[in-house]
Amino acid sequence: MNEDINKIITQRPFPGSKKVYIKGKLHDIKVAMREIELSDTKAFDGNEIINSNIIVYDTSGPYTDTNHKIDITEGLPRIREKWILERGDVEKLPEMTSIYGKKRLKDKSLDKILFKNHINQPLRAKAGHVVSQYNYAKQGIITKEMEYVAIRENQNIDFSDNDLNNNNKGESFGASLPKSYVTPEFVRNEIAEGRAIIPANINHPEVEPMIIGRNFSVKINANIGNSPTTSSIAEEVEKSVWAIRWGSDTVMDLSTGANIHETREWIIRNSPVPIGTVPLYQTLEKINGKVEDLNWEIYKDTLIEQAEQGVDYFTIHAGLLLHHVPMTAKRLTGIVSRGGSIMAKWMLMYHKENFLYSHFSDICDILSKYDIGISLGDGLRPGSIYDANDSAQFAELKVLGELTQIARDKGVQVIVEGPGHVPMNRIKENMDKQLQDCLEAPFYTLGPLVTDIAPGYDHITSAIGAAQIGWYGTAMLCYVTPKEHLGLPNKEDVREGVVTYKLAAHAADLAKGFPGAQIRDNAMSKARFEFRWRDQFNLALDPEKAIEFHDETLKGESYKSTPYCSMCGEHFCSMKATQELRQLAGKEPIISKEELDLKLKNKAEEFRKSGSEIYK
Amino acid sequence: MNEDINKIITQRPFPGSKKVYIKGKLHDIKVAMREIELSDTKAFDGNEIINSNIIVYDTSGPYTDTNHKIDITEGLPRIREKWILERGDVEKLPEMTSIYGKKRLKDKSLDKILFKNHINQPLRAKAGHVVSQYNYAKQGIITKEMEYVAIRENQNIDFSDNDLNNNNKGESFGASLPKSYVTPEFVRNEIAEGRAIIPANINHPEVEPMIIGRNFSVKINANIGNSPTTSSIAEEVEKSVWAIRWGSDTVMDLSTGANIHETREWIIRNSPVPIGTVPLYQTLEKINGKVEDLNWEIYKDTLIEQAEQGVDYFTIHAGLLLHHVPMTAKRLTGIVSRGGSIMAKWMLMYHKENFLYSHFSDICDILSKYDIGISLGDGLRPGSIYDANDSAQFAELKVLGELTQIARDKGVQVIVEGPGHVPMNRIKENMDKQLQDCLEAPFYTLGPLVTDIAPGYDHITSAIGAAQIGWYGTAMLCYVTPKEHLGLPNKEDVREGVVTYKLAAHAADLAKGFPGAQIRDNAMSKARFEFRWRDQFNLALDPEKAIEFHDETLKGESYKSTPYCSMCGEHFCSMKATQELRQLAGKEPIISKEELDLKLKNKAEEFRKSGSEIYK
Repeated sequence: MNEDINKIITQRPFPGSKKVYIKGKLHDIKVAMREIELSDTKAFDGNEIINSNIIVYDTSGPYTDTNHKIDITEGLPRIREKWILERGDVEKLPEMTSIYGKKRLKDKSLDKILFKNHINQPLRAKAGHVVSQYNYAKQGIITKEMEYVAIRENQNIDFSDNDLNNNNKGESFGASLPKSYVTPEFVRNEIAEGRAIIPANINHPEVEPMIIGRNFSVKINANIGNSPTTSSIAEEVEKSVWAIRWGSDTVMDLSTGANIHETREWIIRNSPVPIGTVPLYQTLEKINGKVEDLNWEIYKDTLIEQAEQGVDYFTIHAGLLLHHVPMTAKRLTGIVSRGGSIMAKWMLMYHKENFLYSHFSDICDILSKYDIGISLGDGLRPGSIYDANDSAQFAELKVLGELTQIARDKGVQVIVEGPGHVPMNRIKENMDKQLQDCLEAPFYTLGPLVTDIAPGYDHITSAIGAAQIGWYGTAMLCYVTPKEHLGLPNKEDVREGVVTYKLAAHAADLAKGFPGAQIRDNAMSKARFEFRWRDQFNLALDPEKAIEFHDETLKGESYKSTPYCSMCGEHFCSMKATQELRQLAGKEPIISKEELDLKLKNKAEEFRKSGSEIYK
Repeated sequence: MNEDINKIITQRPFPGSKKVYIKGKLHDIKVAMREIELSDTKAFDGNEIINSNIIVYDTSGPYTDTNHKIDITEGLPRIREKWILERGDVEKLPEMTSIYGKKRLKDKSLDKILFKNHINQPLRAKAGHVVSQYNYAKQGIITKEMEYVAIRENQNIDFSDNDLNNNNKGESFGASLPKSYVTPEFVRNEIAEGRAIIPANINHPEVEPMIIGRNFSVKINANIGNSPTTSSIAEEVEKSVWAIRWGSDTVMDLSTGANIHETREWIIRNSPVPIGTVPLYQTLEKINGKVEDLNWEIYKDTLIEQAEQGVDYFTIHAGLLLHHVPMTAKRLTGIVSRGGSIMAKWMLMYHKENFLYSHFSDICDILSKYDIGISLGDGLRPGSIYDANDSAQFAELKVLGELTQIARDKGVQVIVEGPGHVPMNRIKENMDKQLQDCLEAPFYTLGPLVTDIAPGYDHITSAIGAAQIGWYGTAMLCYVTPKEHLGLPNKEDVREGVVTYKLAAHAADLAKGFPGAQIRDNAMSKARFEFRWRDQFNLALDPEKAIEFHDETLKGESYKSTPYCSMCGEHFCSMKATQELRQLAGKEPIISKEELDLKLKNKAEEFRKSGSEIYK
């Protein structure tokens, strides 16, 4: 059975790549990265020049490590377990705290879908302790998680004085990026200032720590959820494995169907990236979708249930208040946030303030015991260009700022969610207001989509906005798939959405001048100029698609070394022509105008005398 | 045979759409547009509220007019023939002027691929006349072409005082957009100032005039070219018909194979959009790819050959000079422009200045006789992030500015080509420098691509840059397909590339606040909020893909009116919830906080008493 179930899981490494581990200096840790092997450059004179391998950020976890045998019934190695326990501020509970969690565990009919190594005795902070990375950072402690992300952020910087390592010195807006590479102390300080978070629940020891903040590389999130048709447990696990394979930095599990408690355990135990949820969804499931039955007690039990399973961050729509609802009356598309519309309905039914707002301190008290990050939901994000940046949206944003302060006072790590649909000229205002109103807490946006008229292509309309807002300072981008506004994404849609967001995030890193971001681009361009086709594929964000597309017109191993492609053909290849041109002009890479003039005159003579053809 | 050949041509109109013609006021002209029929809104009280149909810009020509019978052996109606002749400044030549053109015509072996109604007696300006739209505009004449584009640019503006017609008042950079709608005089003035061009060769009377300029809607271009495998003539025509179906405003024919002279005639005679070429490519074909055999005489004959067939604009790489070539030595990817690399090689071989530069006045003299636009090629555009905005690129740009002035002095319409690969933070500098150096001539850019590492997704990396530079003031965006850097695009790649660029151009129109641009977005959003699924599909840039994606999960006619989709399902649909919420709050669209509070208190009571379920 175990053999079968693991067959569904995608485990192959990328072509030309292997998993490498970089050791810590402060702590006994090893950071997982991906090394892309590059072939040599064949110079004009026949010599071979070595190209250094490139080490890149890797979200795919042990699934691409050929030395690790994947068995999803066992779950991933619990690399952080020791780190958490040795801090001495947590205790092992005798059993799950959540009433619902206990009930599910006792239900024998669920045994067949139970994860065998499920967390029986969850960890919780000892009384009087706050176990968040924010709290440690404030105390001046550099945790293992902090050193881990510092090393991870440095990606492929080799710290040597290589010209091609220099990036284009981008323009970052009001940010203080690391000077040349990320240090653990820089990480600690950013977290202490509230400008960055490491979402890592103490009950999710499998997580490879990652950081979300505008002075680090831009991250992306993919949403997964069970489809209307019944999926097997392994298929649910594969969804998140598939998303992280293509580069998703976190995964939000937005499942709303049956058995989400048990499925979530499988997903978390097998996830090397932080898992986020919207606890309101499961709460509503528990009361059969009846908004009128929503109440604090059942919501609270859901928070604790998920906290003790290991969810790393919660989206909580606590900023949408009763008096905001009439502000949406003039809108073209009203309230498009699911959580927002549920809470609006509840408030209108009872004519009471949002209970997530009135209980916000209680929520923070719970979250601080497990180090769960809060992602403050934007219940009033605009769902159309027409509604962008309206009074409703910005009124809620102000409340999210108040809540940010409350969360920080409780020691809880916070990020803030943002729009939505926004035309390009109004994107920056979103970023500026968020930084100002929300005390520089990391911004986490959905797109934004820069037009409403392209259903079927909304991964692109939103990537345009995402790249821009990432440049302006957004820390994490929630992906959008081609199926947005139309239906449920399939596997290929998820891949398309993740890679699209990965390239948007990378474009933002280049634009803001994040140290080392350009090294991979330079390696790609050099491989392109030198017709090292295999290297081009291997350096691509999606190597498999690059090969597939290339092979559609020029299939076969012999075409992997031809000095042209089918786009322009042999006679019209400008790269080839330029190479020949350099050969014509002499091998020296840099030459003055005068020198060149002389040399060219001679070369031209010589070249014509030799009777050589330009295009052979 | 005619029946067969026309079967290859895509001719169906878009669902829910029909061709309409809007009459001119100054002139006896009718402007082709597309009307999208919208269904009624079903209000809460059961009444139906009429939604006005939306009229949109339409590049597809007679191919989507069910009243027009397409026969590509006949070609399209020559709508501009009368306009051109009645100006009295052109003469009909006794035969083709080009030596090559005459030779091809005499070659009996080519009869089977000859277009039967080919232009035998091309038009040319009478001696002493310049027949360009620029020249007319300078003289204060509003031509039929100018009124045509004025009406066309107004798209779906109904000039009524409808709130939803107002757009978001975008931010345009140093531009003077039309105040509320485009007038013929505004068009004339923009052309006279050199800020816009109407590419429309007097030998291409089939063209439906369009305008390229930053104070108009942003245009896109698709490149086509014959593939390595032999294509039939009809397949070549279908390529351009397919590209304009999805929204391409102009088509560049970059064919490099055999029979391009004859194929071009078929394409032009069947094209309602301007056709551009790079005459250097055919010139090189004529001398079997031997750069050393290039010379002015053979190039000149090619210009005239294509001019008399009706090509509307030529890309000419006249700005790349001999002393620029050493500037590329430090580059990572050298010269990536095909035309640029050819001319660089020629210059190095002969150690002579670029003959396109030294003969630039002669070129302009020829072009002014046919009203062919010049697109000044950027032979030194950067091919990698590393090479962006370097001294080579900007040195050439300065020369393009000099050439712009020469062309204008000769009465020739000019646009200027731009990059390439540029990180987001360096895009605006390109636009600013181009406006300054090139006397505000329209900018026509390839992307730019904002990262190098996403082959297979470069339509997206480039659309991110294209949307931004379009917002900053670029007038036309040259599309990039998913196959960029990898191989030749197939039909689906062309569609993907065109629609991606259409949405990028539209996003730019919204951002710069082009009058009326937002009307279609608003109609889409309203349809979305009201679950008018058919209207959503019909309003989409790609209606066929929207339906296909929707039907993957919810197939069948019954799902075209359900108030939710498969993304969130029935219980979690926020749009549905908000509608119910408004119903709950009363039908009035706008309501004060106090009123609402009272109303809600009563409604909440009433609602709960009635025992209704929220989700039915």
